[in-house]
Amino acid sequence: MKLVTFSAGAAPRVGVVSADGDAVHDVQELLPPGAGVLDVIGAWDELGPLLGERSAELTSVPLASVELLAPIPEPRRNIWCVGKNYSEHAAEFGRSGYDTPSRSEAIPDKPIMFTKATTAVTGPGALVDPGPTTELDYEGELTVIIGTGGRGISREDAYSHVWGYTIINDVTARDVQRDHKQWLLGKSFDTHCPMGPYAVTADEIGDVTALELETTVNGERRQFAPVKDLIFDVPELIATISAGTTLLPGDLIATGTPAGVGLGFDPPRFLTSGDVVEITITGLGTLSNRIR
Amino acid sequence: MKLVTFSAGAAPRVGVVSADGDAVHDVQELLPPGAGVLDVIGAWDELGPLLGERSAELTSVPLASVELLAPIPEPRRNIWCVGKNYSEHAAEFGRSGYDTPSRSEAIPDKPIMFTKATTAVTGPGALVDPGPTTELDYEGELTVIIGTGGRGISREDAYSHVWGYTIINDVTARDVQRDHKQWLLGKSFDTHCPMGPYAVTADEIGDVTALELETTVNGERRQFAPVKDLIFDVPELIATISAGTTLLPGDLIATGTPAGVGLGFDPPRFLTSGDVVEITITGLGTLSNRIR
Repeated sequence: MKLVTFSAGAAPRVGVVSADGDAVHDVQELLPPGAGVLDVIGAWDELGPLLGERSAELTSVPLASVELLAPIPEPRRNIWCVGKNYSEHAAEFGRSGYDTPSRSEAIPDKPIMFTKATTAVTGPGALVDPGPTTELDYEGELTVIIGTGGRGISREDAYSHVWGYTIINDVTARDVQRDHKQWLLGKSFDTHCPMGPYAVTADEIGDVTALELETTVNGERRQFAPVKDLIFDVPELIATISAGTTLLPGDLIATGTPAGVGLGFDPPRFLTSGDVVEITITGLGTLSNRIR
Repeated sequence: MKLVTFSAGAAPRVGVVSADGDAVHDVQELLPPGAGVLDVIGAWDELGPLLGERSAELTSVPLASVELLAPIPEPRRNIWCVGKNYSEHAAEFGRSGYDTPSRSEAIPDKPIMFTKATTAVTGPGALVDPGPTTELDYEGELTVIIGTGGRGISREDAYSHVWGYTIINDVTARDVQRDHKQWLLGKSFDTHCPMGPYAVTADEIGDVTALELETTVNGERRQFAPVKDLIFDVPELIATISAGTTLLPGDLIATGTPAGVGLGFDPPRFLTSGDVVEITITGLGTLSNRIR
């Protein structure tokens, strides 16, 4: 099932994408008052079967006629993110001089984790505002959506805690990322976390390691990698975070970006006004955003 | 005014500490249904005057008879934190070998910022669970509570965005902080963010730079510093974060810790079971927690 948050005028509504992918069934009437996708995920045991059975009977509107927002427009806390989680990207980042922890091309021996602020989230199709940076960069990333929370989750149990997946563009102000040493501020500008277009249930994806990610800038391929190339895979990330910290339903984990970001070029190819970044992942659709 | 979140059996309630400091007025009946301190701060223009006028008429219970929770038990997103923001602590951390960005004793030229996960928050008096670390450390910190949110806030306007202050113990798993390069995971274990005892309005504090912070472990003074020793002061932190990122009402900014943390000793003096850490800041009370 593909869930969306969409606007057809007033308040955001929850929708389910039709089987042919061309329409959105407005399922708000099946949900508790005011519920969003985050609430649906939190009550999935009850609401998942209900949406599965009843969505198709409900009024639908053409997907092209609505404004899609981020599937989770207001996450309950910062987005978990992983740095240097594809080996060729670890090398390009290490070479670039922007890598503040160590300036190392080596593969990390433990996941490097940081967050993006909630207010960075924006929708598919939304304009990305560069904000106070002259070195704006893109990072296409497979993103895990946690279903059942927990602490001390084992690798073996990890997939049972995954509700589904979406795409995030981990937009980065490289100068700010570098100058402040820890990466939070350079990753957290408003609109620097485009998300979507859909929140897709894990059962629709099957083997996540079989997915492929591609990022284009103005139609030119910049990133391409199979998800199986992740250094720390999805179960490892869930086990690592939850070792000491309780994961919550709806938590988002952006799993890291492959080689081909702007700073990897010599000279770097940072984003400029009007550029269009499109990230496509098998089964998750395409997340497209233009730079203001 | 000093706000608290307290438990007297069932669901947490909002209280206002009495003028003599010995009792808590239960003000829940003055608030919208289900409102917590976070909601009160978000509607302060309306609720602040109401609480000021009416709290004292309401039933009070002795402060000693209730269980205080963190004043904001469930922050709306991760807690903003600042690293190496007192010069002597920057030096001790640089010397320690735990400083992953640069192993430098130098004063940072820009604020080093990271976050703690929301689920780390626990109350005054609560037990701190070490979790999977053998190097548990304390960091006493003055914490700013944002009132009116905003982006692009100037140094000059910054204090008008401060609702008030509280104390946070930025408990840290030093081995995890070091091994994962970025500090998030080592700062985010469950119960590693004791907060409180009160959320104190800015008008009650006056000049925040006149405050002094003291941390003791089992009664022995470990940290002592005037807040005026902050390298990046409160207005600078607000201006820095909000340059590209919208601050929200209720956002918490832990401003950094002075010299005297456990890793600053040679050999390091990490916390062990039964240790009691007490952090006192002028006008903000004492935050006391025992290690499980």
